[in-house]
Amino acid sequence: MTQQVRIGLIGTGRIGQVHALSIDALKNTTLQWVCDPFIESAERTAAQFGGRVTADPADVLAAGDVDAVIIASPTATHVDLISAAIDAGIPALCEKPIDLDIARVDALREKAAGASVPIVLGFNRRFDRHFTDLQQRVAAGEIGRLEQLTITSRDPAESPAAYLATSGGIFRDMTIHDFDIARFFLPDIVEVTARGAAVFSEIVPGLGDYDSVMVVLRGANDELISITNSRHAAYGYDQRIEAFGSEGLLQVGNQTDTAVRHWGADAVESLAPYQNFFLERYAEAYRSELVEFVKAVQGEPSRSPGFEDGRAALVLADAAELSSRTGAAVAVDLS
Amino acid sequence: MTQQVRIGLIGTGRIGQVHALSIDALKNTTLQWVCDPFIESAERTAAQFGGRVTADPADVLAAGDVDAVIIASPTATHVDLISAAIDAGIPALCEKPIDLDIARVDALREKAAGASVPIVLGFNRRFDRHFTDLQQRVAAGEIGRLEQLTITSRDPAESPAAYLATSGGIFRDMTIHDFDIARFFLPDIVEVTARGAAVFSEIVPGLGDYDSVMVVLRGANDELISITNSRHAAYGYDQRIEAFGSEGLLQVGNQTDTAVRHWGADAVESLAPYQNFFLERYAEAYRSELVEFVKAVQGEPSRSPGFEDGRAALVLADAAELSSRTGAAVAVDLS
Amino acid sequence: MTQQVRIGLIGTGRIGQVHALSIDALKNTTLQWVCDPFIESAERTAAQFGGRVTADPADVLAAGDVDAVIIASPTATHVDLISAAIDAGIPALCEKPIDLDIARVDALREKAAGASVPIVLGFNRRFDRHFTDLQQRVAAGEIGRLEQLTITSRDPAESPAAYLATSGGIFRDMTIHDFDIARFFLPDIVEVTARGAAVFSEIVPGLGDYDSVMVVLRGANDELISITNSRHAAYGYDQRIEAFGSEGLLQVGNQTDTAVRHWGADAVESLAPYQNFFLERYAEAYRSELVEFVKAVQGEPSRSPGFEDGRAALVLADAAELSSRTGAAVAVDLS
Amino acid sequence: MTQQVRIGLIGTGRIGQVHALSIDALKNTTLQWVCDPFIESAERTAAQFGGRVTADPADVLAAGDVDAVIIASPTATHVDLISAAIDAGIPALCEKPIDLDIARVDALREKAAGASVPIVLGFNRRFDRHFTDLQQRVAAGEIGRLEQLTITSRDPAESPAAYLATSGGIFRDMTIHDFDIARFFLPDIVEVTARGAAVFSEIVPGLGDYDSVMVVLRGANDELISITNSRHAAYGYDQRIEAFGSEGLLQVGNQTDTAVRHWGADAVESLAPYQNFFLERYAEAYRSELVEFVKAVQGEPSRSPGFEDGRAALVLADAAELSSRTGAAVAVDLS
Repeated sequence: MTQQVRIGLIGTGRIGQVHALSIDALKNTTLQWVCDPFIESAERTAAQFGGRVTADPADVLAAGDVDAVIIASPTATHVDLISAAIDAGIPALCEKPIDLDIARVDALREKAAGASVPIVLGFNRRFDRHFTDLQQRVAAGEIGRLEQLTITSRDPAESPAAYLATSGGIFRDMTIHDFDIARFFLPDIVEVTARGAAVFSEIVPGLGDYDSVMVVLRGANDELISITNSRHAAYGYDQRIEAFGSEGLLQVGNQTDTAVRHWGADAVESLAPYQNFFLERYAEAYRSELVEFVKAVQGEPSRSPGFEDGRAALVLADAAELSSRTGAAVAVDLS
Repeated sequence: MTQQVRIGLIGTGRIGQVHALSIDALKNTTLQWVCDPFIESAERTAAQFGGRVTADPADVLAAGDVDAVIIASPTATHVDLISAAIDAGIPALCEKPIDLDIARVDALREKAAGASVPIVLGFNRRFDRHFTDLQQRVAAGEIGRLEQLTITSRDPAESPAAYLATSGGIFRDMTIHDFDIARFFLPDIVEVTARGAAVFSEIVPGLGDYDSVMVVLRGANDELISITNSRHAAYGYDQRIEAFGSEGLLQVGNQTDTAVRHWGADAVESLAPYQNFFLERYAEAYRSELVEFVKAVQGEPSRSPGFEDGRAALVLADAAELSSRTGAAVAVDLS
Repeated sequence: MTQQVRIGLIGTGRIGQVHALSIDALKNTTLQWVCDPFIESAERTAAQFGGRVTADPADVLAAGDVDAVIIASPTATHVDLISAAIDAGIPALCEKPIDLDIARVDALREKAAGASVPIVLGFNRRFDRHFTDLQQRVAAGEIGRLEQLTITSRDPAESPAAYLATSGGIFRDMTIHDFDIARFFLPDIVEVTARGAAVFSEIVPGLGDYDSVMVVLRGANDELISITNSRHAAYGYDQRIEAFGSEGLLQVGNQTDTAVRHWGADAVESLAPYQNFFLERYAEAYRSELVEFVKAVQGEPSRSPGFEDGRAALVLADAAELSSRTGAAVAVDLS
Repeated sequence: MTQQVRIGLIGTGRIGQVHALSIDALKNTTLQWVCDPFIESAERTAAQFGGRVTADPADVLAAGDVDAVIIASPTATHVDLISAAIDAGIPALCEKPIDLDIARVDALREKAAGASVPIVLGFNRRFDRHFTDLQQRVAAGEIGRLEQLTITSRDPAESPAAYLATSGGIFRDMTIHDFDIARFFLPDIVEVTARGAAVFSEIVPGLGDYDSVMVVLRGANDELISITNSRHAAYGYDQRIEAFGSEGLLQVGNQTDTAVRHWGADAVESLAPYQNFFLERYAEAYRSELVEFVKAVQGEPSRSPGFEDGRAALVLADAAELSSRTGAAVAVDLS
């Protein structure tokens, strides 16, 4: 008999919907509460997947009938909600980033470290089975010592202007996933160099932001890590990793929905364009993320990244921002 | 609110376990009865997935609390069980083949045609999403008129001697899947030519059977279809289809669990060996097969192949057997 | 100091031009004579690549200044020219087929066997470096015992009606290359089964010919060989081989001029269409063919196929023709 | 009748041998002089490919019977030899780098700009047909505006200690090729950021050099270019380019000698390891390089890079060296 884990979902936007779907798909999770100040959205979600409805997260934490919460509300609310979850003794899965302001994150750091319940971060890519297999094989020494890591990450299309304006900039919003993936392989990063450019967007120049960046990280043992980002890609969502070591290379390319290849008069061995965006590409990873969170909630060993991982990614993003402005490499200390 | 479909599972061998897993995985299916004359196996399955237990299929059909049955018992029992299910007015999903003796199948044919409930066949490959995508794109005219179809199907390792002895021979046991896949694209086959050989097995020569066969089918509009089978393959389960048409070619190759490619001192761009066998390769297809059967049970449009498809595959297998012995092409009429 | 081999080229059509180019490209071959009854063509070729001109092959053989001849004239002239070359003691490379009539080939057989000079056949595909590598690795036991061979060969577009009318039919004109490739791996073929269809051509039905065929050969040790041919392919020249053995599989796919892959909005990982036809696909193979012929001329070990290989391919083509008409497998004896 | 171009080859080391082979392979080039102070090497080369022998380059330039020289002697001699060739009015193809000291290069710059004969640089990769195809398709707008370029370049194994000690460091010796390839696509580079590490070599730490570097360049229109280098790679010579534009991506991967793929018990779809090193990978490119140089010598339009390209690559290497030491981005002006 599986023990049901009753989940309170805080935030029902795009990513909240993903979590609702995962909760519905798993046999041992129940959507107990749906919370959103935009109450119609909460009600629609509850109508589809079940659960009680409220506009106030405090109701969820106080109800006494939730075993865990998923924090998928706007970034500015994350710190307070994590803090409240810790106070309530309720495990929390919080979407990235913890906050756009490292000072606010650091103010919560000690409390998070001392929390009696798991506080985990929603870095979904760590749960992709291809990336997981890659990481495990690198860790198992299949390519000897890891020397270089190459991460390519391009979104299919630029986000709307309103989103970009409050995103915290490309490093804190988009590259932050790649910083975490870099740390999935090499947790201890010591230096950040970043260059940025605005080459196609009509929006980001006005924000002082970039739409194209290249970052070089250095690991504690002199590993070099390259991250390439673009806010658009004509061919779809581009998500690739290469790990180069003293004895070989391991590579994960893009994934397709079907394996059908087409040979025609204009081109051969063509695949249909890549999966459109993260909802499709990481659909299975989001479910695995929830499975691992449930393990943590139930006190079992879990692969979920924690608060410190969320903080580290933000520290790297801040360093990249600084480096991109000054042109200088920035030393970082994640300890 | 989803309507639960209560299923009686008859037979709890290897394939029965697959169905039990699928029933457990779907939200709208319940394992209501588990039936196996080897009662300990039925009990183990019920302990894991739920359901009442019996050694007698008649109990399942008479209980009044099942909405459908899955017939996964030995081939020799299929005809009687289908007949009994029709009598009981209970939809049935029957594993292939219907029987090894076409006379017994034909004796049931009229009754099956007049059945008031859906009788569908377990040709799992039709539900693989890659093959489904391929078939739909061919049907949509993406490569013009279909002219040639190439089906490669090799098992990873030979089945045990006891299995082979009662399998009905390679054409009725193994190629039967490929005959059905051929008919998935071209339902109306008019001619069968087959050549067989025994090149590695220590078992099949004693059975007068083959371990290596090549078959050429002809469709009603002079399409040519090649099927290549081997009872073993050092690199794993080999399942590929190519559809060649007047305007191009569509191809589905083998699938891998992870997309990680390895580059090392001995070889480059290597993938891990293919998924071991049908349980892994078609795990998702078995679930889709059940989803489509449930649709049929609920009176919705369904892609499930029916009794006539099961009969046609056996007619083709018999023709292949005859052709392989005489060396002559055999005309068939599937109508 | 390399010894120049002075070559007389008989026939300056499409394939004759290929040989002229190869002679010009090699440092140790000289185009000494150019012969064509269509004298303007001979003159144009000589103007470009050098050599004396004549309309009469007898002039070439009698001149005393040629070390070898290449017979690239119409098929009907091959037998007489080979015979004359043997009489003159001049090594000959003859294009396939030797003749369309096996009786005429057999009439020359004893003389060819007793010839004091090398008589080699122009089966260019044996010299493709990919196919050569494949054959050598199979021969070296890399995949254990060879059990199944799969040859796919599709022309980009149907030949003109005039060509087809005198081609001898698809088996003697097109499949003959695949018969030879089959024998490159398995020289001793014992049985031929063939099915043919006319599915797109407006020409071949009037000729009683096919545009789509599938052939199954059996080797002396029960190896099975599948050949699939089509007279057209929207995506270009399709030339693939798979060798399946007890310990694995080796595969050669189609070749492209450049390795550039394109990722766009409509498709990803696309290559430019395949090399158009045999002149492009086998350009390098034709040069290697000449290199091996020169070795034979100079008395060195050579990989060139001989008269018996040319005869064997025609025997198999005749058997395929018969099988395709009667529907029965045809036993052959190539000894 | 082709006009023979008589070439004097100065330097007969590893790269000199490559040029001798190319001269021998082309029909319109003759090896007229072979020059090396190590006279036995010159004599061996002349014995194989022809030509008069001398230890003194002045003999070659003064002989009056050479139409062009190839300067393949040690780097320290390049500036003087280019200068002398200009004085003698003899076209020169000089191996990279022009010199390790930009001051010496700049001292020659004006003279080179005013030279009456072509002075071209041996950046062989520009002549690889895959890279050429890629560059032409980018230039033709196939992927819209070029936004990001990713160059991966790893040597199969570290060079000997003696070579490394006088190489000028990884940026001037190895990355210099990638700087030129970057400029093949984007001639006007304005900024260089570089990070280096010594992760495996037992030699380079003692030299203050790196064995692993990542460089980010910025083009004049804010294009970003990533270069990844390693002095070793277990799987062979790694030479890849990706061009990302507003409308798609074009990619060239590594090349293999044969297209045979192996499927076995340990791995599937494996290729033999990549071509070992530049002599194999760029054998054809070296011939094309010579063809283009010959065109320049004969006054025809030529794709050969010139003195300014050689200088620009060194300027970028110097900037990378500086950036790797200071951690700061370095602005460059190549005009």
